[in-house]
Amino acid sequence: MTTASAPAASAAHEHAGHESAAHEHAGHESGDTACDRGQHGYISDKARYLARLKRIEGQARGIHRMVDEEQYCIDILTQISALTSALQGVAVGLLEDHLRHCVTDAVGVGGEVAEQKIKEASQAIARLVR
Amino acid sequence: MTTASAPAASAAHEHAGHESAAHEHAGHESGDTACDRGQHGYISDKARYLARLKRIEGQARGIHRMVDEEQYCIDILTQISALTSALQGVAVGLLEDHLRHCVTDAVGVGGEVAEQKIKEASQAIARLVR
Amino acid sequence: MTTASAPAASAAHEHAGHESAAHEHAGHESGDTACDRGQHGYISDKARYLARLKRIEGQARGIHRMVDEEQYCIDILTQISALTSALQGVAVGLLEDHLRHCVTDAVGVGGEVAEQKIKEASQAIARLVR
Amino acid sequence: MTTASAPAASAAHEHAGHESAAHEHAGHESGDTACDRGQHGYISDKARYLARLKRIEGQARGIHRMVDEEQYCIDILTQISALTSALQGVAVGLLEDHLRHCVTDAVGVGGEVAEQKIKEASQAIARLVR
Repeated sequence: MTTASAPAASAAHEHAGHESAAHEHAGHESGDTACDRGQHGYISDKARYLARLKRIEGQARGIHRMVDEEQYCIDILTQISALTSALQGVAVGLLEDHLRHCVTDAVGVGGEVAEQKIKEASQAIARLVR
Repeated sequence: MTTASAPAASAAHEHAGHESAAHEHAGHESGDTACDRGQHGYISDKARYLARLKRIEGQARGIHRMVDEEQYCIDILTQISALTSALQGVAVGLLEDHLRHCVTDAVGVGGEVAEQKIKEASQAIARLVR
Repeated sequence: MTTASAPAASAAHEHAGHESAAHEHAGHESGDTACDRGQHGYISDKARYLARLKRIEGQARGIHRMVDEEQYCIDILTQISALTSALQGVAVGLLEDHLRHCVTDAVGVGGEVAEQKIKEASQAIARLVR
Repeated sequence: MTTASAPAASAAHEHAGHESAAHEHAGHESGDTACDRGQHGYISDKARYLARLKRIEGQARGIHRMVDEEQYCIDILTQISALTSALQGVAVGLLEDHLRHCVTDAVGVGGEVAEQKIKEASQAIARLVR
């Protein structure tokens, strides 16, 4: 079980790590927000996010088990809707923390730094909305 | 990791189990579709659904790790959007199989059995759309 | 106002009309469901759908006016969310009626006719979910 | 047609007007961002938003006509999906402008003014995502 999913997990992770590196690079150029130094908005609430994501992992595992045990399709769909809602809740929370810290810091710096963070946040919102 | 999330997983599972029992009960009353006897539409494709859900579990675990490693907020949001899309893909697939098998069977029986399955499928669609 | 929007409306209409013609063509080949003869599922409830869509048109006009009067951005977003919900409600209703009539009829015919309608409904669900 | 929908349009408008009044009141208390004085972020792009919303109105009218002319259910659903996408595009655009102007201004003021605008924007995002 763990073995089978490990590649997917680490692929997602490496991918994100790669993008993150790109951001850090951008950070090195602009170099002046707490966010660029890796002090992200959600960190003050990290334990709570980890707990929520642990529950989400459990929900994903529960849905896998429901299919494995050949439970009723509609019940599985109900759990998928619940998991989707939980994910959207985490995403909206992360976005709020991101606005409160990273974007706020970037606005303090102003100019291109601010503009870039606002554009980036808007694109993330667009991906969540669609 | 496994220990911490186990309660959430089994809670989701028990809940579904409970609803499933209610459906089986309804099945005993109407008694005559393959679906009521536990031969759900997705079963012919079960291995593929299990593989997709395994990847989804891996994606959820990857997002947990990103927060734990304090990666960039926007990268985490990107992964949440990808996971949400993957879940919606599974949901739409399950619904299609459900229409093809369970609802089709119920339509063959007709009357209240058909009407109940159509109403139930529509409510599941409404939960996915919102 | 009416003049400016007329091209968009009729473009949408012509586009749909074109697709509709394709469906009618498919209907002529299979030729045997009420749906293929234009007796769509929602028709028994047509007056209620027209009233809901009239309100939706009014909501769209209200949002246009809010921008024209330079009202507060967040209030406009609230109205866009309300309009989106209203549209999703109509879509779920139409889908339910479509399952109850067109898909049910096609299932009665069986074979390719049934399969095609189920595939088509699933694709429509996928477009609504994403 | 126009007459029937007028009450809905003005109801939406009055409702928004009411909320707007509440915001203006809050603005009078904090009193110091361009946004509070009615210079909203989207205004520099107002003509383009009005044109997009005009098209959206036309799309809504087109869907009403499709039901009136008893067109094929699935074609109507396709148009509803297109209209929903168009609305989401406008919403994401308004949010981006709101972040760039109103939220940025509020961050400049700092303290409660900034916090309130960030909370309000996050709630608007939550309504769009769900």
